[in-house]
Amino acid sequence: MDTSLKNVIVEKAKTSKIDQVDFNNLSFGSIVTDHMMVCDYKNGSWETPKVVPYQPITLDPSSKIFHYGQSVFEGMKAYKDTDNNVWLFRPLENQKRINISSKRLAIPEFPEEYFMEGLKTLLKLEQQWIPQTEGSSLYIRPFVFATGKGFHASPADEYKFIIACAPSGPYFSGKVKVLIEETYSRSANGGVGFAKAGGNYAGQFYPTQLAVAKGYNQVIWTDDNTHEYIEEAGAMNIFIRINDTLITSPISDRILDGITRKSLIELAKEEGINVEIRKIAVKEVVEASENGTLMEMFGAGTAAVISPITAFGYREKDYELPELENSYAALLRKRITDIQYNRAEDKFGWRYKL
Amino acid sequence: MDTSLKNVIVEKAKTSKIDQVDFNNLSFGSIVTDHMMVCDYKNGSWETPKVVPYQPITLDPSSKIFHYGQSVFEGMKAYKDTDNNVWLFRPLENQKRINISSKRLAIPEFPEEYFMEGLKTLLKLEQQWIPQTEGSSLYIRPFVFATGKGFHASPADEYKFIIACAPSGPYFSGKVKVLIEETYSRSANGGVGFAKAGGNYAGQFYPTQLAVAKGYNQVIWTDDNTHEYIEEAGAMNIFIRINDTLITSPISDRILDGITRKSLIELAKEEGINVEIRKIAVKEVVEASENGTLMEMFGAGTAAVISPITAFGYREKDYELPELENSYAALLRKRITDIQYNRAEDKFGWRYKL
Repeated sequence: MDTSLKNVIVEKAKTSKIDQVDFNNLSFGSIVTDHMMVCDYKNGSWETPKVVPYQPITLDPSSKIFHYGQSVFEGMKAYKDTDNNVWLFRPLENQKRINISSKRLAIPEFPEEYFMEGLKTLLKLEQQWIPQTEGSSLYIRPFVFATGKGFHASPADEYKFIIACAPSGPYFSGKVKVLIEETYSRSANGGVGFAKAGGNYAGQFYPTQLAVAKGYNQVIWTDDNTHEYIEEAGAMNIFIRINDTLITSPISDRILDGITRKSLIELAKEEGINVEIRKIAVKEVVEASENGTLMEMFGAGTAAVISPITAFGYREKDYELPELENSYAALLRKRITDIQYNRAEDKFGWRYKL
Repeated sequence: MDTSLKNVIVEKAKTSKIDQVDFNNLSFGSIVTDHMMVCDYKNGSWETPKVVPYQPITLDPSSKIFHYGQSVFEGMKAYKDTDNNVWLFRPLENQKRINISSKRLAIPEFPEEYFMEGLKTLLKLEQQWIPQTEGSSLYIRPFVFATGKGFHASPADEYKFIIACAPSGPYFSGKVKVLIEETYSRSANGGVGFAKAGGNYAGQFYPTQLAVAKGYNQVIWTDDNTHEYIEEAGAMNIFIRINDTLITSPISDRILDGITRKSLIELAKEEGINVEIRKIAVKEVVEASENGTLMEMFGAGTAAVISPITAFGYREKDYELPELENSYAALLRKRITDIQYNRAEDKFGWRYKL
């Protein structure tokens, strides 16, 4: 396949919806911008990416996305600094990861140049849509799904890769209280848990609804075999601070290799924080809470950024987290967002100027 | 919700595609009939089902089916006897199971009367499409997926339930050689393996492609924790005959409660066959093959009916199954298809006349 790209085809929207948007009251991911990038896979190769007006998709009812869950996605953000420069955060990590996800789901990989050129062309058209309000950004959703037809349970022969954008506020509003789950599981050894596969999320909705009914916001998943070890929170990786040590689970075929997660590990190390990447037993966290050494828990992800956890539930009992003056969560949140919004030096080279 | 149904709205197709179909050379699930049933879930309830011309679906790119895999499906068949009567096989089992699947995926359940009346109205219009050729039938695909919009990882507020039909020949053509899988897994304890969830299938495609590249047709999944026990084959439950005993794995939250599987268990018992429903160690199957007591292996499912397995691969070695004169597979296949095609008495009351 020739993956060198000459150009991206652009068809501009005749009118803009931007005047209807209240940028001071943005929810998460519910308002889309005027354009999207679309690229079709047919006859064994990806066609030329197009940036077109955001519009409905028309599909045959036998398209495999409706039957066999062949879809993966990414989550990214574009940030605008006070000089109206636009920045991305480690976009090539998302580009690589969507292909890692695609491979596991038997979806053809999308060339790096198509991804980056399509994304940049789209964002240049949508610059006005990038919020400047603190805590807001342009959420970017690259996704790919099977459009090929037929009821035979086998990979599709056609796919559609889309990048859409949504000016967004915080993912969580208010306190985040989590439930450590011991009945339901998110992923299997040798399964697709490390991939951002659509089906991983659908499987979490019902257990999360049960947790919400009990007053929690999110589930913390444990390993499906013993339910003794903390894995991730589905939309976030989990960090736990015991005394002054910051601990997070190692990635595996069950746990997403979070870009925020690995960035925070580097930033924490640079801050001189002792970071341990190892299995975390639920028992250890409960004991630390009981003996007063559990200082913090927080979730980390592109959508959630850093979400401090105020309490966790385990076996019908709630364990409150202390409120700290100088939390790692606040420190690391400042460090990472200062880089993302171009307010501080970027010694790791993570910022990517549009 | 009022689930008593007054009637199904019918809009007939102006022309039929039936003349273009070669009913003597049907593949599986690639040709669809003229109509489909559609029912939308909006504002907290299912609208009146409609039977309409088979047509494309138009969706917003942020519809949750494209992102979060919220979809489940069923597989059924309609059979035509020599008097042109049309029969279904245990349709209420499919109706119940799609709701069991839906519940786990946080999809609203579909009322029994909507399912049955929608299905019957559709099939009455499509009677001419039901093949009478031996080994062929009308494959029926009920499926439901999330149409609600937004990039927040949470259940959709709108859904679409569709029933489509495809006149089909056999699912497998020729010999079926399987690979016992020890690296990849299909499902987790506490996961969605018992549901006919789209994502369960997408996750199987890549490992199956690897198996196909080695000369196998299908993967036999083992438990994700030890890989020591046989689970199912993804599109089929598995039966193993050692000496004169027929063994199949118990259902669990990782294994689909197959309708063909449970029908075959009853038919085998009625035939006086010793049936054991218990965990099957891979080691036991290998040993039985080596000492000559492994007589048969076959897959069972609506699409595959009964698919005799001619060999299995395990740890780089192939184990051939003997060719038997009087196989359980052949006997049970005759028994179940005689009921399905109305060629024999139906003492279990499984047949359902349209």
